[in-house]
Amino acid sequence: MTEIAYTERICTDPEYISTFLEHQRVGILGLAGEEFPYAVPVNYLWHEGTIFFHSMGSGRKIELLRSAPAVCFTVYREHGTVTAQMPCHADTAYDSVMIFGQAEQITDAGEAAKALQLLVEKLLPGYYRSQLTPTLIQRYRSSLDGNAVAVFRITPTKLTAKQNHAEPKDLFAPFA
Amino acid sequence: MTEIAYTERICTDPEYISTFLEHQRVGILGLAGEEFPYAVPVNYLWHEGTIFFHSMGSGRKIELLRSAPAVCFTVYREHGTVTAQMPCHADTAYDSVMIFGQAEQITDAGEAAKALQLLVEKLLPGYYRSQLTPTLIQRYRSSLDGNAVAVFRITPTKLTAKQNHAEPKDLFAPFA
Repeated sequence: MTEIAYTERICTDPEYISTFLEHQRVGILGLAGEEFPYAVPVNYLWHEGTIFFHSMGSGRKIELLRSAPAVCFTVYREHGTVTAQMPCHADTAYDSVMIFGQAEQITDAGEAAKALQLLVEKLLPGYYRSQLTPTLIQRYRSSLDGNAVAVFRITPTKLTAKQNHAEPKDLFAPFA
Repeated sequence: MTEIAYTERICTDPEYISTFLEHQRVGILGLAGEEFPYAVPVNYLWHEGTIFFHSMGSGRKIELLRSAPAVCFTVYREHGTVTAQMPCHADTAYDSVMIFGQAEQITDAGEAAKALQLLVEKLLPGYYRSQLTPTLIQRYRSSLDGNAVAVFRITPTKLTAKQNHAEPKDLFAPFA
């Protein structure tokens, strides 16, 4: 693959990248399409170097994932606009990570249940007392399409990260 | 193109969609790649039914845009996780818009300057007194690669929007 052209902002700190991926909630799944590419936001889990996400068992995303499983998974956070004396030099403060790899549907109910359980704990920490079980995952059918939930994993073939941090005083209306 | 499978959440209110696109700051540009697709966040402007964004004049994004200008442009906002008695029914509250079309680099310096001026006013309202001029756009060269700024437009061939709104009381730790 082509390397990052604008090298000044590359982040190579694996701990920083991992912590960032653990804490963000939404990633964008970039898929190849027929007429157009397809970029769709999903909640995700980053666990032991792997991205996990789930989906209804039918729909456009699933069709594309099955026909072309090579994906890009992008997670970013914008911190605000960095002011500068000249508008040409105004900039954006952000963190972003791009993961490239093959998306594979998880067929093992135990692994799927574990990933979903960790995702629930990430998004709703402390909310549920009971655990998701493989049996529940296997039996559950969506009231919308009658399908079981589909859980996918992406093991990164390549991961790149960029960041541009700024002092709060240099940000225009810093985000909360 | 395939229609949206999960129709319950389709939003068809053009004013709502337009206001949403005007106010969000970042969109994800979904591009076709060779080995993997490419999904990259960019600041953007929605003006008179068109997406405008800019880029350095070199780099991966520009190469891909030139080799395969059919793009997906996705703008979303997550509002939080919607609680439910069963974890299988927990959900995400969000707005999202997906735009499909051809990305074209703007060659007219006047049009590029106008788009950049409106983008500056969107991101840094009231910050600059002087306006970006076509001459400045033509003369400006990045200190990083020596190229002029590249400004692109995407005129939507197709636009779809989805939303899932929830009462704040049903959200887990609602976002500010």
